[in-house]
Amino acid sequence: MIEYIPGLAGVPATESSISYIDGKNGILTYRGYSIEDLVKYGSFEEVSMLLRDGELPDKNKLDNFKNILHKRYEVKRNIRSMMWSLPANGHPMNVLQTTIAAMATFYPDAGAQNPDSVYTQGALTKIISNMSTLVAMWARISAGYDPIPPSRGMSYAKNFLYMSFGEEPDDDIVKLFDACLILHAEHTINASTFSAMVTASTLANPFASISAAVGTLAGSLHGGANEDVLKMLDEIGDAKNARAYIKNRLKNKQIIWGMGHREYSVKDPRASILQSMIEDYVKKSNMHFSKRFETALEVERICEDLLSSKGVYPNVDFYSGILYAEIFKIPQTHFTPIFAMARSAGWTAHWHEQVGHNRIFRPAQIYIGSNFRNYSKK
Amino acid sequence: MIEYIPGLAGVPATESSISYIDGKNGILTYRGYSIEDLVKYGSFEEVSMLLRDGELPDKNKLDNFKNILHKRYEVKRNIRSMMWSLPANGHPMNVLQTTIAAMATFYPDAGAQNPDSVYTQGALTKIISNMSTLVAMWARISAGYDPIPPSRGMSYAKNFLYMSFGEEPDDDIVKLFDACLILHAEHTINASTFSAMVTASTLANPFASISAAVGTLAGSLHGGANEDVLKMLDEIGDAKNARAYIKNRLKNKQIIWGMGHREYSVKDPRASILQSMIEDYVKKSNMHFSKRFETALEVERICEDLLSSKGVYPNVDFYSGILYAEIFKIPQTHFTPIFAMARSAGWTAHWHEQVGHNRIFRPAQIYIGSNFRNYSKK
Repeated sequence: MIEYIPGLAGVPATESSISYIDGKNGILTYRGYSIEDLVKYGSFEEVSMLLRDGELPDKNKLDNFKNILHKRYEVKRNIRSMMWSLPANGHPMNVLQTTIAAMATFYPDAGAQNPDSVYTQGALTKIISNMSTLVAMWARISAGYDPIPPSRGMSYAKNFLYMSFGEEPDDDIVKLFDACLILHAEHTINASTFSAMVTASTLANPFASISAAVGTLAGSLHGGANEDVLKMLDEIGDAKNARAYIKNRLKNKQIIWGMGHREYSVKDPRASILQSMIEDYVKKSNMHFSKRFETALEVERICEDLLSSKGVYPNVDFYSGILYAEIFKIPQTHFTPIFAMARSAGWTAHWHEQVGHNRIFRPAQIYIGSNFRNYSKK
Repeated sequence: MIEYIPGLAGVPATESSISYIDGKNGILTYRGYSIEDLVKYGSFEEVSMLLRDGELPDKNKLDNFKNILHKRYEVKRNIRSMMWSLPANGHPMNVLQTTIAAMATFYPDAGAQNPDSVYTQGALTKIISNMSTLVAMWARISAGYDPIPPSRGMSYAKNFLYMSFGEEPDDDIVKLFDACLILHAEHTINASTFSAMVTASTLANPFASISAAVGTLAGSLHGGANEDVLKMLDEIGDAKNARAYIKNRLKNKQIIWGMGHREYSVKDPRASILQSMIEDYVKKSNMHFSKRFETALEVERICEDLLSSKGVYPNVDFYSGILYAEIFKIPQTHFTPIFAMARSAGWTAHWHEQVGHNRIFRPAQIYIGSNFRNYSKK
């Protein structure tokens, strides 16, 4: 009998060559490349190709991929009218799970039988491409406005911000947002990625698999940590209250949202990158500091001071929450959908890897229920 | 380091008290009750309650549950218009995954935080109730017809057949269909149930979780075996060809669809029940035997003859395929959706069990990819 480990924590569920975490040294690599390098030299488009193919593309291939990805931003009319049928207060993650599943009906031949066919590869690209449009569309539709049509000439990061706000974002903002997308594109086998793999393992189509992953990411234990960071900042209210608040929470052994990460015993490398990008942006742009932003910077200083000796540092959620709210001005409810949109690059890569070396997931259970009993009508 | 077992085969992923398989003795129990007893004395409604609550309901409770379940057959207008937006050739499983996910937007407070609240319990009942309507609706809409509104006064099994065909089915047919639903309602931790649990484990809402399970069941390795049985029967074409066909496949070590089950080393108890119910029905109804039905009966005899000494018997898919096609006259493409509709009772029970003793699923990976390498633009 194999030991039962709740949550299968630490139990190997796959052999994978997509990403790697070295939690002791604070290293995250995609296909062997450090995320520092990928943020510095790459783009979300290039990283999507890298995750999918295993190698960096040459310029021709990358241009070709960008061309396809950008041409396919548009969402089918039928999907758009589906969205109009849903209630305006529908949670964006539920809408995203719905619409990705619906896309399968339009691509009946995108399957696990031919994962490398041009058709199926096109479907995977379509998922990544449409994720951004679907997220921006629902933000607009749910607020009572018409969606802003995508702009084919723009990069993935730029077009998303354009569709969200209706104006061309400046280059520094696009660079920052592209970095966020790269840093959230992949992170080994977490619950949502595992969910995509379990669905893929019956040879379900990629839409079914990514839709399941979106549903899993929607759970409050998984995708919502950067929203909790903001709630905490709003609770603190003002930078001058931060030290007392944090000390009090530590004393009561309460969670400090956005601090620490179970995969890393040193600082989450994604957090370091975002932190220094935010600092550079702030310096360069002479931005006006909101009260919340001041509070966040103070919380960061306090936590580095109080917690870093214990190996607990601000994590990626701490900075992405601040970035989304204070620099990009994105409403909180859309944070997790943006995470999903970035992660679609990793999920589709895992769908492809799973069906390529497939074994259906069928673990066992330990039965702890009633013994055999005879039926007697009550 | 824990051993890597592909597909987590035999690795315990949960403690569960919902159902139990004794594969050596051909026993399947739900909450301790044998499926033989449940088919004989129970109904799909009663079994749904049993799976959910752990105990058989008394008459009052059962009547109350039936009342709620039957009152809630109706599908919201918005969901109906969503379905009209989808292409008529959309696969029913993709449509089902879509519409269940969409339902979440109407029940924002049905969550894992309060799995026992009246509201969340109502949402679980709504899922089971609407599954049947959604499946019947899409069968009609995709064929170009208007859906037939559900009839509150009818049992789950009867109403489904009524919505599918527009006329009241006779009682023997209803009894047979109800038995099929009971026999497919639950079967421990298979891929789709595990998928529901993985999604539930982030505390995602029940719609997100059941939608993911539908997507997983849609894969060709999981839900489609009874369709393969029919394809095989049509390949055989005539009862007189059956023996040569089966012998030839055995010689070439090809799969005989609908034969054997990895969980059972003796005859699948669900198959025995369906077999004898079909025999009784045939005797009683003086039914006309189609060529395909004659072929199926011949294949069954041949396989009992050639294979039973090896512990290989016709399984539940063999009989359900014949039943659906030859007795209920349901088109093949709706077999897996009917499976999903029955299994929704088990899936919702597992959602509830999972969030009640939750630990997020986050297994590990064995990294087999590229070593660290420096970025160099190609």
